[in-house]
Amino acid sequence: MHDSGADPQLIRDLVDANRILADQGIVDAFGHVSARHDRRPDRFLLARNLAPGQVSAADIVEYLVDGAEPVRPDAPRGYLERHIHSEIYKARPDVMAVVHNHSHAVVPFSCTNVALQPIFHMAAFVGLGVPTWDIRDAQPGTDMLVRNAALGGHLAATLGRHPAVLMRGHGSTVVAENLPRAVGRAIYLDINARMQYQAIMLAGGDKPITFMDSAEVAANVSWQNYERSWSLWKAKVLAKLVSA
Amino acid sequence: MHDSGADPQLIRDLVDANRILADQGIVDAFGHVSARHDRRPDRFLLARNLAPGQVSAADIVEYLVDGAEPVRPDAPRGYLERHIHSEIYKARPDVMAVVHNHSHAVVPFSCTNVALQPIFHMAAFVGLGVPTWDIRDAQPGTDMLVRNAALGGHLAATLGRHPAVLMRGHGSTVVAENLPRAVGRAIYLDINARMQYQAIMLAGGDKPITFMDSAEVAANVSWQNYERSWSLWKAKVLAKLVSA
Amino acid sequence: MHDSGADPQLIRDLVDANRILADQGIVDAFGHVSARHDRRPDRFLLARNLAPGQVSAADIVEYLVDGAEPVRPDAPRGYLERHIHSEIYKARPDVMAVVHNHSHAVVPFSCTNVALQPIFHMAAFVGLGVPTWDIRDAQPGTDMLVRNAALGGHLAATLGRHPAVLMRGHGSTVVAENLPRAVGRAIYLDINARMQYQAIMLAGGDKPITFMDSAEVAANVSWQNYERSWSLWKAKVLAKLVSA
Amino acid sequence: MHDSGADPQLIRDLVDANRILADQGIVDAFGHVSARHDRRPDRFLLARNLAPGQVSAADIVEYLVDGAEPVRPDAPRGYLERHIHSEIYKARPDVMAVVHNHSHAVVPFSCTNVALQPIFHMAAFVGLGVPTWDIRDAQPGTDMLVRNAALGGHLAATLGRHPAVLMRGHGSTVVAENLPRAVGRAIYLDINARMQYQAIMLAGGDKPITFMDSAEVAANVSWQNYERSWSLWKAKVLAKLVSA
Repeated sequence: MHDSGADPQLIRDLVDANRILADQGIVDAFGHVSARHDRRPDRFLLARNLAPGQVSAADIVEYLVDGAEPVRPDAPRGYLERHIHSEIYKARPDVMAVVHNHSHAVVPFSCTNVALQPIFHMAAFVGLGVPTWDIRDAQPGTDMLVRNAALGGHLAATLGRHPAVLMRGHGSTVVAENLPRAVGRAIYLDINARMQYQAIMLAGGDKPITFMDSAEVAANVSWQNYERSWSLWKAKVLAKLVSA
Repeated sequence: MHDSGADPQLIRDLVDANRILADQGIVDAFGHVSARHDRRPDRFLLARNLAPGQVSAADIVEYLVDGAEPVRPDAPRGYLERHIHSEIYKARPDVMAVVHNHSHAVVPFSCTNVALQPIFHMAAFVGLGVPTWDIRDAQPGTDMLVRNAALGGHLAATLGRHPAVLMRGHGSTVVAENLPRAVGRAIYLDINARMQYQAIMLAGGDKPITFMDSAEVAANVSWQNYERSWSLWKAKVLAKLVSA
Repeated sequence: MHDSGADPQLIRDLVDANRILADQGIVDAFGHVSARHDRRPDRFLLARNLAPGQVSAADIVEYLVDGAEPVRPDAPRGYLERHIHSEIYKARPDVMAVVHNHSHAVVPFSCTNVALQPIFHMAAFVGLGVPTWDIRDAQPGTDMLVRNAALGGHLAATLGRHPAVLMRGHGSTVVAENLPRAVGRAIYLDINARMQYQAIMLAGGDKPITFMDSAEVAANVSWQNYERSWSLWKAKVLAKLVSA
Repeated sequence: MHDSGADPQLIRDLVDANRILADQGIVDAFGHVSARHDRRPDRFLLARNLAPGQVSAADIVEYLVDGAEPVRPDAPRGYLERHIHSEIYKARPDVMAVVHNHSHAVVPFSCTNVALQPIFHMAAFVGLGVPTWDIRDAQPGTDMLVRNAALGGHLAATLGRHPAVLMRGHGSTVVAENLPRAVGRAIYLDINARMQYQAIMLAGGDKPITFMDSAEVAANVSWQNYERSWSLWKAKVLAKLVSA
């Protein structure tokens, strides 16, 4: 389904990313992960309209960043919300991978304007700032889906230079310079949200919570690519395929 | 166990609905799902008295909407609470599927009169209103079960035109125009309850929570049939059958 | 390991009870379930010192209610806390089955003197009263274990005529007139605790919570033997044995 | 990978400890467990840089307590944070096993200075005191990892004579006189944290919580080696290996 130009390893990694996110409970039938084309930065790779846990290499479709249309006219039907990916790739040349998801612990933060803060060292990137986007600010009365380039562009503008953006009543979109980092960030964003929720409850409104400070965040995000995690997550997916 | 008149695909879908609800943790030994007969709107299909995860096509029984008695005199024993289904089909000609369940996150809302509100776009239907029914208002001193048509009718009256009704200290009943929508609503009602609970805790009584507004609700419920979810949920059930 | 006098079906049910409680997460390496001998009310059946999920019929040992010593002198080593069982069988001729466990949601109630109340109709028996026993009232400075008949008797006195007793910082002990009822009560005690916890949080100290009233409790406990649940729980255990 | 001097049973136990901690959800890709060499107290055994659930006997590396360098020059790459282990073995001759982990329920306590207290008898050791270490007190602006002997020594000093130390925004390190005790403590530290969190919420700031007192703690920790648990945890790991 994709042009031969993309690195086959990138395709394999993208398939792994889809299955890892499903296996780790970050996506279910919804949510999607993409990678920018390694040789054509004006293109990106994204599965056809399928639950991520069911994606194989043959399901990967090549899209144009400009307009989010597939390169091949006979491409199968894509995700409605692929404009999330295209508009971020357009606005952020540094971004090589994007994960959109509905992980459950994040949504309550998106609806209460309680800012996520970096409480767990595995989620240090949260300290780079995680703004919240409300689709209602872009357009009132939507069905909450990012159905076109205008909504995607508005979301990308709120994301700005940050590593992630919450989407009110919907979920989040996480970006990174490579696939393992984007997948790891999506997984640990949810864990950070759960830990921060519990810390807020424990602190009870009158006790301080110690978050990572900006120097600690900077020292950690400089290298954190979740390499040992990626290897384990892949092994877990493989083990289930073998035993199935 | 059922008359040949019903569409075999409807029977298969109803069996899938039973197994999906069990696999997704919405029902255990208790809870049941029914579908209105596709050719005889005065009849509905419901499993015999069996845990939903154990239901096969041979367990589906055809019932009369009027009185909730089986069409065939030799039908196996049915669920005591089938009057939930029959009275809703009687009161709501638009309803084609009904799910009754005890999903855990919903019960605390039913006992505290904290109204469920649409916090997650996958549960937009909550914004159409989810009233709470207290069986005590219909009859004091019951064992909490909807054992007859009078109790079922009282529940159906509280449900009114809404997509779901909470049952105090018991669970909920969810309705829709088709089986996938009813199943999806039952699953996401529980997720919405968990997210709303956490948002209420985070908001702490003094911060606002942003719920979906009525225009967003209307735009979303118009099309949401959980199609990609239904396909994934079926695949998960099938994978377990194959590996068993 | 047991005398031939006991009904073989009772032995099979007791093995099932052990495995069900492990599979449902109510016991792990600790916790135990016993049944009174069907023909000799002065005796009871309890597994040897083994994790409940690993118990087979050959592991069932017959004990004397008076003193909690095994009937056969060559019996394998038993649970240290078997005095929980023996003293309850001594004090309560109506009790035919006892489950001791550490289910997690119950412990916080045991340490805070927040009384469990019947919030969920599947746990109506909670409305018969669930007192809390503090071993410190019987003997200061213990290791928290019910190591002898005196401690077991003190616990049984606090249990009184109730269906369950919480044990501070330890867990609970649940009793019933038959094994499925005792197992079901142990499982739903934990679920009731989780639901009540969430309702208390939602109510926030200033909103009322509607619990089952005494008439509703009486109507429900009169018949509730968790029959359909027992059948499903057994099937789940069997499915795992077959696929292993 | 290890010298032949260590007891083969110790190696097997260490492999089991790795897999048990992964299977019980206490470690994922991160976290590690070590044992002091049984014949050379100046050495310890720790897996190479690998997720604990993937560790086999061939992955165990022998390290010098002084400096945390491997005994063999051709040893494979080790964990960056092995100084946690070496500095504790140096400071605590009584310690024979160390578990470092990120279990989720513990982190919120580490960030709020709410002291863990012994609420559950299986975690009585918490009553011996669990201080919190903030890496920022040793060195500002780190990436949160214990990357050298100085940081490890500072952590060991905060641990002092206690059985565990929380690490702010990171996790915890747990020690014991043998492997099963260290593994059991790591598992029950997380359970104690969850139970204490719920008790604090239930108590609501104005009701007392009854923790184990010092006499109860002393009576329990004197013998608690989690023996029946260790046997069950091993069986669970083995069952998964067999069915895989």
